[in-house]
Amino acid sequence: MDELDFIQSLRALATHPAARGLDDDAAVLDLGTETLVLTQDSMVEGVHYLPGQDMADVAWKLVAVNLSDLAAKGALPLGVLYTHMLGAGDERFVAGLRDVLAAYDTPLLGGDTVGSGPFGGVRAARSFSLTAIGRASCTPVPSRSGAKAGESLFITGPVGAAMMGFEAMEAGMEEDGSAYRRPVPLLAEGRSLAPYASAMMDVSDGLLLDTSRLARASGVTIDIAASSVPIAAPETRRQDAMRWGDDYQLLFTGPEAADWPVEVCRIGTVLRAGKTPVLVDGEALAPDEPLGYRHSG
Amino acid sequence: MDELDFIQSLRALATHPAARGLDDDAAVLDLGTETLVLTQDSMVEGVHYLPGQDMADVAWKLVAVNLSDLAAKGALPLGVLYTHMLGAGDERFVAGLRDVLAAYDTPLLGGDTVGSGPFGGVRAARSFSLTAIGRASCTPVPSRSGAKAGESLFITGPVGAAMMGFEAMEAGMEEDGSAYRRPVPLLAEGRSLAPYASAMMDVSDGLLLDTSRLARASGVTIDIAASSVPIAAPETRRQDAMRWGDDYQLLFTGPEAADWPVEVCRIGTVLRAGKTPVLVDGEALAPDEPLGYRHSG
Repeated sequence: MDELDFIQSLRALATHPAARGLDDDAAVLDLGTETLVLTQDSMVEGVHYLPGQDMADVAWKLVAVNLSDLAAKGALPLGVLYTHMLGAGDERFVAGLRDVLAAYDTPLLGGDTVGSGPFGGVRAARSFSLTAIGRASCTPVPSRSGAKAGESLFITGPVGAAMMGFEAMEAGMEEDGSAYRRPVPLLAEGRSLAPYASAMMDVSDGLLLDTSRLARASGVTIDIAASSVPIAAPETRRQDAMRWGDDYQLLFTGPEAADWPVEVCRIGTVLRAGKTPVLVDGEALAPDEPLGYRHSG
Repeated sequence: MDELDFIQSLRALATHPAARGLDDDAAVLDLGTETLVLTQDSMVEGVHYLPGQDMADVAWKLVAVNLSDLAAKGALPLGVLYTHMLGAGDERFVAGLRDVLAAYDTPLLGGDTVGSGPFGGVRAARSFSLTAIGRASCTPVPSRSGAKAGESLFITGPVGAAMMGFEAMEAGMEEDGSAYRRPVPLLAEGRSLAPYASAMMDVSDGLLLDTSRLARASGVTIDIAASSVPIAAPETRRQDAMRWGDDYQLLFTGPEAADWPVEVCRIGTVLRAGKTPVLVDGEALAPDEPLGYRHSG
């Protein structure tokens, strides 16, 4: 059973409407007069971070990527629960956790702490799982599936900053890596946009890949105008910046002429569904051309 | 930084009243006209289950232990989110998940799926983390800290069944291990008792250890009458049964003469705080005598 089969078999279980078919950034659950927004994302050593990375940054990112999912649904964080696997750098981990929870005024509500072995002689690769709970600021809560032909695609800011940050870190310039190390969940922007966006998500895995997801969920094709995509990288890296993840900008659709409450960039057009979910400057990508370079949660 | 230091440093962060000082079975969060009950417990290969165990049972237990925490707070499950680490037996895992969610009418709302390596040559010991969300059926939601001197200690049923089940499995009698393999969260009992119990928790780590936790949280001493403890084991194993975990009975306090809405056993007396939080037949345990044999989440 591979990952796709596994996720398909989970989807068959997740029939409650609040689960949104496991196809959105978060679950959306009506409760009394409130609407809860719930998300769970994890980080695994060797996949989402490298051994030797400052664990304060790992803690920051773990919280930030979950809060970014809340941001994409226009939700206000109520708190987090998280499971910690003990190991090296735990003091730094707690320091980073304190920073990020304070920065976004989000309470730690509970969780679990487990050992990391060795178990049967095998040291565990460490993993950390976090659940963020939010309350919707407006209903209906934007999904990925509401984009309609004739609308436009927008983004809240540049892509490529995390890529440049990662490369700076690889080159030993740790201090220039903050866009990668400490991503910023756009909570206020998400709440401002949620009442007006027809579909919204955060860009975690790369602009092209995430646009294709939004397009598939909505049953449309989206044509991105490459030159209009704001990038935080040299022009020579435009194609890379559109494929790199970890920037956590908000990607959303709506009328071209809308008076958006925050500064946004129009980067594409929503079309009726064609052969492929995403076009760049009107052209389909070659079948073997990657939509994204990195998978990061 | 060892586990205790780590948890202490988390407690210093968890100042929101909903976190209950990270000292209860679950977080309790008021939201509009509702009260949410939130818990997160994980299972790690080699700690909470053994490689080779039927993964359907692992999935069952992961959900059941979390629902048991909701039961101890009198909450009705609204759903679960969980993070899965891919690996052997995933089809069985999904089958067990389907069984347990159906048995307790609990929707799967979301989660995350990650690989298990090898990363840098190290296979990850697999870990699974689950968050259960419930709604309180009564307020105030019972805590561990409400027991008062003069009250009695009660339990919903026998301890030792999981111990006997585990030993049957070790002896190759898999079918006799169901009490260990597939614990039952006492959701209906918890909701019936919650309005009347002064303090309540589930017995996950052993009767003596969990009683000591309830006593410490309440600032009392509790004297257990050993012979009154119902056990699902031979009389010769009474001391073991009182120290083994995994039975998930509900342990609670209240007036001796209360007319409890479900069948319960009175097993002890709440006293003013003495030198040790728990006595057995009026005697403190020897300092080196273990309160519990197994730690299991």
